[in-house]
Amino acid sequence: MIIMSNDSIRAIAWRDETLVLLDQRYLPQQETDFVCNKLSDVIDAIRLMVVRGAPAIGITAAFGVVISARDCFHQHGDQWKQFINADLKLLAAARPTAVNLAWAIEQMNGLVQECSSADPCDILLQKAQDMLLEDIQVNKAMGASGADLIERDSQVLTHCNAGALATAGFGTALGVIRSAFEAGKIKHVYADETRPWLQGARLTAWELVKEKIPVSLIVDSAAAHLMKQGDISWVIVGSDRIAANGDVANKIGTYSVAIAARYHGVKFMVVAPTSTIDMSLATGDLIPIEERSPDEMMQIEGHYFAAKGSNAWNPVFDITPADLVDAIVTEKGVIMQPNADKIRKLMSR
Amino acid sequence: MIIMSNDSIRAIAWRDETLVLLDQRYLPQQETDFVCNKLSDVIDAIRLMVVRGAPAIGITAAFGVVISARDCFHQHGDQWKQFINADLKLLAAARPTAVNLAWAIEQMNGLVQECSSADPCDILLQKAQDMLLEDIQVNKAMGASGADLIERDSQVLTHCNAGALATAGFGTALGVIRSAFEAGKIKHVYADETRPWLQGARLTAWELVKEKIPVSLIVDSAAAHLMKQGDISWVIVGSDRIAANGDVANKIGTYSVAIAARYHGVKFMVVAPTSTIDMSLATGDLIPIEERSPDEMMQIEGHYFAAKGSNAWNPVFDITPADLVDAIVTEKGVIMQPNADKIRKLMSR
Repeated sequence: MIIMSNDSIRAIAWRDETLVLLDQRYLPQQETDFVCNKLSDVIDAIRLMVVRGAPAIGITAAFGVVISARDCFHQHGDQWKQFINADLKLLAAARPTAVNLAWAIEQMNGLVQECSSADPCDILLQKAQDMLLEDIQVNKAMGASGADLIERDSQVLTHCNAGALATAGFGTALGVIRSAFEAGKIKHVYADETRPWLQGARLTAWELVKEKIPVSLIVDSAAAHLMKQGDISWVIVGSDRIAANGDVANKIGTYSVAIAARYHGVKFMVVAPTSTIDMSLATGDLIPIEERSPDEMMQIEGHYFAAKGSNAWNPVFDITPADLVDAIVTEKGVIMQPNADKIRKLMSR
Repeated sequence: MIIMSNDSIRAIAWRDETLVLLDQRYLPQQETDFVCNKLSDVIDAIRLMVVRGAPAIGITAAFGVVISARDCFHQHGDQWKQFINADLKLLAAARPTAVNLAWAIEQMNGLVQECSSADPCDILLQKAQDMLLEDIQVNKAMGASGADLIERDSQVLTHCNAGALATAGFGTALGVIRSAFEAGKIKHVYADETRPWLQGARLTAWELVKEKIPVSLIVDSAAAHLMKQGDISWVIVGSDRIAANGDVANKIGTYSVAIAARYHGVKFMVVAPTSTIDMSLATGDLIPIEERSPDEMMQIEGHYFAAKGSNAWNPVFDITPADLVDAIVTEKGVIMQPNADKIRKLMSR
């Protein structure tokens, strides 16, 4: 696996004129590249969760636009702009919940509209590369801001993977955990295993072990029992979309953890760039919740364990209402006890 | 698999002078018998979860006492009673949380003390058989009482497996679900898959599919999201031990579901025979919580999926405080909003 440099985990890279993704379906057992040469590869990568995590999906889509523009130009020459729109629509439909996908395509499309009929590759590639680097910078800024909220020697709980693998690098929730650990503020991390896709057991634990940050996995349903033992000061998670009132869409189970946190007086932090905030949706009820195949939860790596003839309901995100959230950490600042007014002010900074 | 008769699921049977258990480690893929010829087989069966579920563990232990007495008599003749005590201690230590284990051994030991020095096999076997049949009757009585609490066309959620497999037959929580379905009161059952051992996906779904009761599996962490969609009227679970104040030990995750139920105004029912009530413990804090090997949650059937080098914390029960419980259904009656006073009165009936 050649995507990692300087001992940092990088899940997305542009190399030899292709998009190279670390295939997260096979982590942590195998570190394999998934190479995207054409747009359908990029769409497959997002849809099949080769790459996942809202910011990472956005960055991947930005490179997808580069690939689409390149192919449109190769095929149609100076007429290329007439053909790219259909591609962008397909790309935007790859997964429904993470708004960063639409946001990144919109950013890239703004530049597409400014392009001449000449070969757009270099200019679009530069933009995608800039977005990648900016995402890392944004994560580092959020890491520092989030760490400021945490007291020394804390134990924290995280759900799913909002780490380097879910972003261009460093991570949102895990970015805060990295920064806080570095600053001596975190002594132990508990990670929900995060059924059905096991992002916690497979990806978060993998990242934290690499960084030598002490981590214990728990089954998702043990979070409340853990909090009752005391000594968890913060739950720290990422987000796939935040509504204009501060309601938070994130991996299924986040809502359950948020309710348990409130019940035990544990604070709840959401770490997400402002590209995750969707000002067009007044409340979380309007956020589309993806439902994936029941098979995804009835088997593990081809081993089917559920009783034959049973059905499953597999929503893969849920909505945590703003009133259960203590802090939203963004690159533009931190909002405590989020509401529509505070979010509007943040977004106009 | 020859344990089932009359289309009813029976996990425990005495046949050809041996105890025959349906090996629940391999369900639903394989229906295999686990034959116990000596006491160490019985202890292994309980410890390794060949048989699980508090009432089923109790009944199994009762037959374990028969086997122990038989072997003591064969080895030591009329001195057999001097030797059985050590066996009973080993048996009682097989698993710590379910009080039905100690309860059943105590019941059997009472009879052991009354026995003469002659061969005790027939008399003890009769007692164990009676306990098995009584457990089924008790479950049927609780099934009817619990069903009375449920309104027509309800949807309910259950956690873990408190069915025929967890008892001598019929089930506690699933007994109520069976009775209520029969009476047209339940139109759909949601079952938590119940990590790490997947009792919901493997056992509860298997039982309900056999009975043609409509069932959908969810990941444990989706329970709160499900309740938010509305239309879940009751959570119905079993218990491994109930303290004198009504605090309930049950499968890890039960507490999380109970908090979410209260948050959404969903009612919470615990179905357990009075043999599960431990009057010697004032509160749930005193109930020993078993922690099992981290490996149990980091692999599925030998397939290790968690990141190498990570640890796991694997408590397999938790405590739901009495104030989150709306009803405890026992064979002696139903208690609404349980507390120490109501439980004392129930137990003195």
